[in-house]
Amino acid sequence: MTTDARERFNPDKLRVFSSKAMQKLGLPKEDADITAKMLVACDLRGVESHGVAHLGSMYCKWIKDGIVNVTPKLETVSRTPTTATMDGDRGLGFVVGYRAMSMAIEKAKEYGSGFVNVTNSTHFGATAYYAMMAMEQDMIGVAMTSTMPGVVAPGTAVSVIGTNPLAISIPAGKKAPFVLDMATSVVAAGKVQIAQRQGKMMPEGWVVDSEGKPVTDPNKRVRGEGGLLPLGITPALGSFKGFGLGITVDILTCLLAGLDFTLLKEREPGTNPSDFFFGAIRIDGFQPIELFKEKMDNMIEKIESLPTLPGVKKAYVAGGYEGDIVIPDRAKNGIPLDPSVIQDLKDLSEETGVEFDIK
Amino acid sequence: MTTDARERFNPDKLRVFSSKAMQKLGLPKEDADITAKMLVACDLRGVESHGVAHLGSMYCKWIKDGIVNVTPKLETVSRTPTTATMDGDRGLGFVVGYRAMSMAIEKAKEYGSGFVNVTNSTHFGATAYYAMMAMEQDMIGVAMTSTMPGVVAPGTAVSVIGTNPLAISIPAGKKAPFVLDMATSVVAAGKVQIAQRQGKMMPEGWVVDSEGKPVTDPNKRVRGEGGLLPLGITPALGSFKGFGLGITVDILTCLLAGLDFTLLKEREPGTNPSDFFFGAIRIDGFQPIELFKEKMDNMIEKIESLPTLPGVKKAYVAGGYEGDIVIPDRAKNGIPLDPSVIQDLKDLSEETGVEFDIK
Repeated sequence: MTTDARERFNPDKLRVFSSKAMQKLGLPKEDADITAKMLVACDLRGVESHGVAHLGSMYCKWIKDGIVNVTPKLETVSRTPTTATMDGDRGLGFVVGYRAMSMAIEKAKEYGSGFVNVTNSTHFGATAYYAMMAMEQDMIGVAMTSTMPGVVAPGTAVSVIGTNPLAISIPAGKKAPFVLDMATSVVAAGKVQIAQRQGKMMPEGWVVDSEGKPVTDPNKRVRGEGGLLPLGITPALGSFKGFGLGITVDILTCLLAGLDFTLLKEREPGTNPSDFFFGAIRIDGFQPIELFKEKMDNMIEKIESLPTLPGVKKAYVAGGYEGDIVIPDRAKNGIPLDPSVIQDLKDLSEETGVEFDIK
Repeated sequence: MTTDARERFNPDKLRVFSSKAMQKLGLPKEDADITAKMLVACDLRGVESHGVAHLGSMYCKWIKDGIVNVTPKLETVSRTPTTATMDGDRGLGFVVGYRAMSMAIEKAKEYGSGFVNVTNSTHFGATAYYAMMAMEQDMIGVAMTSTMPGVVAPGTAVSVIGTNPLAISIPAGKKAPFVLDMATSVVAAGKVQIAQRQGKMMPEGWVVDSEGKPVTDPNKRVRGEGGLLPLGITPALGSFKGFGLGITVDILTCLLAGLDFTLLKEREPGTNPSDFFFGAIRIDGFQPIELFKEKMDNMIEKIESLPTLPGVKKAYVAGGYEGDIVIPDRAKNGIPLDPSVIQDLKDLSEETGVEFDIK
């Protein structure tokens, strides 16, 4: 058990509670189950920024406020056997994303690969989860979403793209799978909020002000001025690469759907539209899956056995720490929650009448 | 015309010369033409590290030494409609890469997307060129290749992956196309060599020694100890992202072909095998191409019109500077070459008997 003094909760019960609460607010059972499963899967991986912490304050609130359409009609146009676009009809991002990635996987089963672009949805949680859906079918999974501008273009201090996360997920054999889930900025916006909550300074390289100068005190950051830096930090250290990846995410999620670049979009007040791109490629379209998984295991074992620098216990491939340490601990000992999240869930229990039985 | 005092040469004549020289050494005309076209295309884009500078010293030498097979039998296995693996039979990377990407494009024409993994080839020049082949067919092009280990894993000072470049290319309308061609390390290995040649210090963040400490003097770098850093530099600044992308390239080029992870491969002395991954996705599989290109132009124009930081003339999207400035200059005024490259080409002319007519 890792050192975490917080109170812990039962993953299965959290899942049931989350689903029932959303059902009480009008989400159909199947969709509520899908969403609850994804939220708790994030908490199990330690990605607390995208788990049940947001159940009440974001997703349930959006359902109540009508920002999310609980009975969306998903319209799909497929212009080739392996590509499709889906209109999410303002459905809950988890539900729309799940159905779109499922469609990409079905296309890949039949043709070897499949890609689905989704517009007019809402926030879908952690990008990794969708890539992992393909991975669980022995495919290479890719998922991305464009977010509101907050990352500056190299050579400027103007926020033009979002943190635009990109996830790639690839199965292994006995070892934990490869799961890369990365904002294309140096850090995700949530890391700045965490530094602020904890009263900590940020390293130079995370945020710049309106003159492009580093901001290290999260309280001195002025909203709407400057922004996060693209992965790479400066042009000499590769910021054109992080920015290029972020632009790629915007192109595949928005422009490929015939929408404007995020920065140029006109938004209706009170809405929070979200656009996605999903891909799945069959590994056995290239080689027998057993051979591939054996090679994956060998690679991961080699990297995990590397001599490390002082202060570093072990080298990991993306997804290894979560798979080997975090998930087993939380599956066995429960999911630790912050007191404020516990209170939010209690409030949600009172509001919906769903019993607060999550221990 | 940009300020470049070097002697300039005619792109068409350089192409003809390069092709004829390779033909004299035994490469079939069609293959020599393909290779010469790609080499000069790199020089036109200003990517001099992958142009005719290497014609004599690398590619022609490899042909003469028998490292490259000039009449390879390309064996392809296609296990699904949209995926294939190709054995390059030690053919010249340009030739094998061209045929593999052409196959991915053909699959995409029929099914919407296509992916080809290539093993047992040799160095293929600039990764961007192959992604651009798909782009020229109004597709999203992806290309990658794994290179010899020289980039350290985060938390270690051990080189475990190559600079593993990744290229993504997407067409625009009137504007120059989006062309992202990035090493997944902070910089490509060539940048260290350039600093060394020019007697310049390197910024901290490019290279570390065997203790993980920054090396800024390129002459103090010890081969085989430490290495380049992954894009992101440190874990706090995102090096797990650059490393994860580099690992992805190794997986798609090697493991997906049933080969070992590059670090674990046993190599025959005197060979330089190279493995690739190519992908093409039809844009009109999602939206009409005209609408997409209009949105691309709007995005690029918006970014290029951003106010810039002092000392920065203009903000660009990847590929914009090359498309707007470098290519028009070199197409009109010729390709500038270093004196040492001119001498190499003269030597090649003498050796092959092909007239030195490149002005």
